[in-house]
Amino acid sequence: MTQISAGERDRADTLASRRDKFILPDGVIYLDGNSLGPVSHTAISRINHAVTHEWAAGLVRSWNSAGWMDLPITLGNRLAPLIGAPADTVIVTDTLTILIAKLLANALALRPDRHVIVTDSDNFHSDFYIADGVAAATRRDITVRRTTRAALAEALDDDVAVVLLTHVDYRTGELLDMADMSALVHAHGALMIWDLAHSTGAVPLHVHEHGADFAAGCGYKYLNGGPGAPAFAYVAPQWLDSLTNFLPGWLGHARPFDFEPTFEKAPGIRALVTSSPSVVGLSALAGALDVFEGISLDVLRRKSLALTDFFITEVEERLPGVFELVTPREHHRRASQVSWRHDEAYGIVQALIARGVIGDFRAPNIARFGFTPLYLSFRDVDVAVSHLVEVMHHREYDDPAFRQKNPVT
Amino acid sequence: MTQISAGERDRADTLASRRDKFILPDGVIYLDGNSLGPVSHTAISRINHAVTHEWAAGLVRSWNSAGWMDLPITLGNRLAPLIGAPADTVIVTDTLTILIAKLLANALALRPDRHVIVTDSDNFHSDFYIADGVAAATRRDITVRRTTRAALAEALDDDVAVVLLTHVDYRTGELLDMADMSALVHAHGALMIWDLAHSTGAVPLHVHEHGADFAAGCGYKYLNGGPGAPAFAYVAPQWLDSLTNFLPGWLGHARPFDFEPTFEKAPGIRALVTSSPSVVGLSALAGALDVFEGISLDVLRRKSLALTDFFITEVEERLPGVFELVTPREHHRRASQVSWRHDEAYGIVQALIARGVIGDFRAPNIARFGFTPLYLSFRDVDVAVSHLVEVMHHREYDDPAFRQKNPVT
Repeated sequence: MTQISAGERDRADTLASRRDKFILPDGVIYLDGNSLGPVSHTAISRINHAVTHEWAAGLVRSWNSAGWMDLPITLGNRLAPLIGAPADTVIVTDTLTILIAKLLANALALRPDRHVIVTDSDNFHSDFYIADGVAAATRRDITVRRTTRAALAEALDDDVAVVLLTHVDYRTGELLDMADMSALVHAHGALMIWDLAHSTGAVPLHVHEHGADFAAGCGYKYLNGGPGAPAFAYVAPQWLDSLTNFLPGWLGHARPFDFEPTFEKAPGIRALVTSSPSVVGLSALAGALDVFEGISLDVLRRKSLALTDFFITEVEERLPGVFELVTPREHHRRASQVSWRHDEAYGIVQALIARGVIGDFRAPNIARFGFTPLYLSFRDVDVAVSHLVEVMHHREYDDPAFRQKNPVT
Repeated sequence: MTQISAGERDRADTLASRRDKFILPDGVIYLDGNSLGPVSHTAISRINHAVTHEWAAGLVRSWNSAGWMDLPITLGNRLAPLIGAPADTVIVTDTLTILIAKLLANALALRPDRHVIVTDSDNFHSDFYIADGVAAATRRDITVRRTTRAALAEALDDDVAVVLLTHVDYRTGELLDMADMSALVHAHGALMIWDLAHSTGAVPLHVHEHGADFAAGCGYKYLNGGPGAPAFAYVAPQWLDSLTNFLPGWLGHARPFDFEPTFEKAPGIRALVTSSPSVVGLSALAGALDVFEGISLDVLRRKSLALTDFFITEVEERLPGVFELVTPREHHRRASQVSWRHDEAYGIVQALIARGVIGDFRAPNIARFGFTPLYLSFRDVDVAVSHLVEVMHHREYDDPAFRQKNPVT
């Protein structure tokens, strides 16, 4: 056992009271907030307000009186500090994949003489699909070049228009160095798009300072905005004027209510909006962001690292030699999850879920656990490891009920 | 005055009790359900269930256990009867404009030797923008040809790949003949996409029988699915096998949880899905669709026509010569709204809103009133006209408070 007890750690935890802001089922230790964050009381109250006051009582008038029309911008501005973005550079709309398509199209337009999109061969598959899709749809002959992160430098040449990387590896939890990689990409004259799906709300981000040209992330992981919550996009200030939207819609028009027959984009980040905002979903995300008010991301980060350190140490001490740690041990390379490799990973995750410890499985053999410092205690980690010890000692993963592949996202 | 009173009409109305399924503010007569439908009790209860049971208690497990993953399909199948579509040809996802982009891309791919998108010069501006956007983004030299509906036949030649028409004109409420126009377009070898924004839930639709190749509509007008509710798309059975998605994402993959590096589309309509479904918004729409259960669209249509007939007659009798009727008088050419032309239309609409009669203004001089038979009574129409009479007699539209342009959607 580690020297400082879970109880002592919890008593010293300045974030401990944030847990009360969430609804978590009794008997559940939730280590899957990196897939879907839990609901907060403020998310519920914002949804209720949007539905029973703004929609029910305000009806169509709420597009103006309740600020619905501006929600993509106002929520973007609330989210901006979480990613280190200046005001009016972030928008909340659409889904992550569709926003990445819009950003890729922008990057390609800014590098008209170049023909290659580079991405990481360990990237999330949806990023592969949309990069291939945008390449196929564009007027130029664009190819997508996949490379390992280690070989990124060699993959960069003067035909590379844009590099699309996910900041945190969804399988391993490895955290990339945004500043270094952005600088490397810029040194080759290319543009840098960061997918922040597994970073936002979990690690301090500095998209502006660290040279991101574009970035996008989702609202439903560490931001706790609800299943399928709207996504967000960041555009660096220097690209705002030249922004285009290859999926133009009425709400991205400079004068949407003039019903003009020709598209003229709105100034600034608003040009990326296509359609009327999904108000109910945006309200859930607005409430979820309330939970972050008054919190230092550096404090959050310190607790996140302490939780994952504690988990790694406890597992390795109480189950020595059983699991192979996939997540980097070095703090500067670790995000807010811990992944273990084990041949029985699928059954182990299922057995843990049956015990109320919710993590997830990633093919072919990874058990993945997310640690959200907003609502997890060190005691949770301690109890989760005790369950894991039981699962392993009793080979609960051999239970036929846990053999069939029944994936969770 | 017309011979049959509003009270008598209401007593004969078999749909009258449906009004209790909606929340409508006291003192409001809501003639803007063609812009944003009101909230229903079932929408609220479905939202609450999704948030407090599925999300809060089920957490990430609800992707499977609550059927979240299949919501685009299951809701599509619930919506299908409202538009006359067979099972498994409708999907609920994204926004109307993005779905039209996906459908246009499919139509262009099915007519690879043709280079023209034809659309109606009176179409909704967002349809113009996205048609231009898709034309500009595609690999081929595609042009967009705008034509009046009267000149549609002349605009069709053997270079036309696809025609995009909105079934109900958002300004005038004119209802187009889907069967005739689809047949005309097919006779020229082109494909037909119908935008059903102002039709779905308001008029009986028969997309399959009437030859639509593709169709799309929004969830927040006559379907009452909430502000910015997800949209839907229909694909005719003969095009399902060849369906493509130029915005491919993980949930449209044949095996989303195998995390494969190359996109292989899911069979059938599911290929059109890009991202994880927006569950809270979809739940609102699911609840809104409950209200349509057990209703004949033909009964709905008869009441709709009776309401608009009554409104036209009352206005013309009580304010003779004051307004020019823009909406067709013929039933087969009229949808579920009535639009009047008047130089003071803007101020008139504002003065009515101040009196609790909510309609809307469409530039440059149209006062537009939507009639939803699910919650409007003939008494509502009668009272609305009385307010209009007062507004006109006292020239309330001259009030400086109503002069400034402050648009509602």
